[in-house]
Amino acid sequence: MSPERDSHFMRHAIGLAARGLGRVWPNPAVGCVLVRDGRVLARGWTQPGGRPHAEAVALAKCDARGATAYVSLEPCAHHGLTPPCAKTLVDSGVVRVVTALTDPDSRVAGRGHAMLRAAGLDVVENVEAQAARTLNAGFLMRLAQGRPWVTLKLALTLDGRIATVTGESRWITSPEARRMVHALRARHDAVLVGAGTARADNPDLRVRDLGMMHQPVRIVAAPRLDIDTQGRLGQSAREVPVWLVHASNAPEDARQRWRDAGAELLDCGTNSDGLVPDQMLQVLGQRGITRLFCEGGGHLGASLLRAELVDELIVFSAGKVIGSEGRPGLAQLGLTQLVDAPHFKLTALQQIGDDIAHIWSRQPQ
Amino acid sequence: MSPERDSHFMRHAIGLAARGLGRVWPNPAVGCVLVRDGRVLARGWTQPGGRPHAEAVALAKCDARGATAYVSLEPCAHHGLTPPCAKTLVDSGVVRVVTALTDPDSRVAGRGHAMLRAAGLDVVENVEAQAARTLNAGFLMRLAQGRPWVTLKLALTLDGRIATVTGESRWITSPEARRMVHALRARHDAVLVGAGTARADNPDLRVRDLGMMHQPVRIVAAPRLDIDTQGRLGQSAREVPVWLVHASNAPEDARQRWRDAGAELLDCGTNSDGLVPDQMLQVLGQRGITRLFCEGGGHLGASLLRAELVDELIVFSAGKVIGSEGRPGLAQLGLTQLVDAPHFKLTALQQIGDDIAHIWSRQPQ
Repeated sequence: MSPERDSHFMRHAIGLAARGLGRVWPNPAVGCVLVRDGRVLARGWTQPGGRPHAEAVALAKCDARGATAYVSLEPCAHHGLTPPCAKTLVDSGVVRVVTALTDPDSRVAGRGHAMLRAAGLDVVENVEAQAARTLNAGFLMRLAQGRPWVTLKLALTLDGRIATVTGESRWITSPEARRMVHALRARHDAVLVGAGTARADNPDLRVRDLGMMHQPVRIVAAPRLDIDTQGRLGQSAREVPVWLVHASNAPEDARQRWRDAGAELLDCGTNSDGLVPDQMLQVLGQRGITRLFCEGGGHLGASLLRAELVDELIVFSAGKVIGSEGRPGLAQLGLTQLVDAPHFKLTALQQIGDDIAHIWSRQPQ
Repeated sequence: MSPERDSHFMRHAIGLAARGLGRVWPNPAVGCVLVRDGRVLARGWTQPGGRPHAEAVALAKCDARGATAYVSLEPCAHHGLTPPCAKTLVDSGVVRVVTALTDPDSRVAGRGHAMLRAAGLDVVENVEAQAARTLNAGFLMRLAQGRPWVTLKLALTLDGRIATVTGESRWITSPEARRMVHALRARHDAVLVGAGTARADNPDLRVRDLGMMHQPVRIVAAPRLDIDTQGRLGQSAREVPVWLVHASNAPEDARQRWRDAGAELLDCGTNSDGLVPDQMLQVLGQRGITRLFCEGGGHLGASLLRAELVDELIVFSAGKVIGSEGRPGLAQLGLTQLVDAPHFKLTALQQIGDDIAHIWSRQPQ
C-alpha cells in the first residue's frame, strides 16, 4: 500500500473520529476504517460516553479477514469492560494495522502495537500524526498536564468591545457567527463562564437549533456562589449538568441552594484575584473534562491568559465600533512590556455572515 | 464587440488608472486602452500631477485610426492647458469610445460623450461602472461633498489595543503588515495623524522601502500647534510637504516656528472636542485632497467615526493580547445604544505576515 493511500484512509479515519469530539470524554475520540483491495469495508468511531471503541464498531459491521485497519490512535491493550481492541483486531483476521499516534495512556503506551506485532500483523505507525494530535489535543493535554485543552472565545467589535457602557451586548455578532458558537459548544466537553457573565447575561449555555441531543457540561467559575438559582442555569440543572467551581469558604446556604437545584459543586483554591486558574483546570481535568470552551467574561478570560492556560483563541470580529467607554473583551493582564504579551499564531480565517472568524493557537512565550 | 470583451478591456483600463492613485490629485485617476481587431495598440494612464490625461498618453503612442478607445472616465470636454480629450479622440481617427463613468465635474457632465457622438463616433457608457466608481471614490467624494474619501487604519492586538499601559507600541504588527501600510500610504494623496500621535511617536509618515519617489502630503490635526518642530516631521518639511491643521486661536509663535520649518498652516474651526472634523475635511478638500489615509491616534479616529466621516476601515489584527490597561485603538464615541454603533461591511480579508488584514466599508446608519 502506498504512503499516499495510507494517508488518505487515515485522514478519513480522523474525520470520523471528529464526530466524537465533546461526547466521548474522558476517552479519546478515535476513528477506524477497514479497507481491503482499496475498498472501504466498514467505518467506526468512538460512541458517546466513550464506548464501544471505534475498532469494535467497525469490526462488528463486516468480515474483516485480510483487511487493513486504519485507526487514528493506537488500539488499547488493557482489559476494561470489554476485551482490548488490539486483541479484537487480531481475532478479526485483519492482517495490517495503520495508526496515527501511540496512546500515551500508561495502560497502553506501545503495548497495543506490540500485541499486534506479536500476533504477526503488519503495523505502520505515525501516519498523519500531526492531524491526529490536533484532533485529540484535549485528550493528550489531560494525560500530559492533568488539565483540559482550553479554547477561549471572544466575540468583539473591531475595537475589542463586548458591550456598550450600559452593558448592551445583543447582538454584536451576526446570527451566522452565533450559530457557529453553538456548533463549537457541541464539540467541547464543557462550556465555562465566569460568575459576572452568569449574573449579567443569565445565559443558558446549551447547544440550540442544531438538532443536537448531546449537550456539554455547563460550568460557572463562581468563587462565592453568588448566582441566583432562579436563572436559566439553575432552572435547567436537572436536564443538562451544571457544575459550579467555588472557593472553599463559599457560604453554606448558597451551596445548599445549588445542590437542591441539581448542580454539582467543585471546590477550588483562591488567590486575591479569585479562583486559581491552574487549580480550577486541574479540578475539571480530574473530573474527566478534556476540551473546555470558555465564553468569558473579560475577567475569567484574562485570568486564564495571564496563567498561560489558553491554548486556542477563537475571535469573532463584527464590523462595528463602540469606542473606549464600551466594555472591553478582556480585563487587565498586568503586563509591563510588550514582549510579555501573550501571543498566538493564526490557524484559520474565514468570513461568517457579516463577521469574520479567526482562530489562533498559543505560541510559547 | 461583445459586452464581455468590452468589460475585459475596461477592467484593464481601470487597472492602469489605479497606478495614478495618490499622485494625480485633485484630478481623477484615469486609464485608457486603445484596441483594434482585438489587439491592444497602446495603453495610457493619468500622469503624476494629473497631466497629461490618459487618452493623450495612449494616443501619442500609436496610429489609432479605426480603433476603439476604452477610457475609465468620460473624456474631458473643456479647454484647459491642453485641448479637450474628446476632441483629441475625434482627431485621432478612433471610431468607437467605451467609458465606465460620466465625469460629474460640471465642466464635463456629459459634454464629452456628446462631443464624441456629434462627431459620429460610436459611444458605449457605464461599462464596469461600479469598479470605476470604487477606484475614483476619492475624486467623486470631493466633487459631491467637498471632502476627501477617508480611510482609517487601525493596527491592533486581538483585544483592540495599540500600546501597553506605558505606551510601548513597537511593534504590535508584523513587518509584512507594516510594509502594507507603506503601500497604502503611497496610494493616498495625504496621510493624517493627530497631534497626540505626532508627539508620542515622532513619526516620519513617509513611504519607505518601496522604491517610491512619490510621497503623500503629511498632515497633522494640531489645534494648538503644540508639536516640536525639531521632530521628524518638522525637520523634513522642506523635502516632503507637511500641513498642519490648527485652531484659529493657535499661538502666533508656534505658527511662525512651523512656517519657518517649511510647513503649511491651515485654519479650522473648533468645538469642545478639538477641530471640527467636517470642517477639517472641507479645508483639505478645498486644497485638492481626494484620498486621505488616517493613521490615528484613537482620539482623531473616534472624532471622525462619531461624525460619520470614515468611509473605509482597514484593520490589522495581530495575534497578541495586551489587556484592558493597554491603550485603546479608539477613544470614546459617546454611544448610548448599540444600534447607534457605526457599522461597516466586510470588503476584503487576508492573512499578511503573522497578522490578518480586514477591510470594511461604511454602511449608512
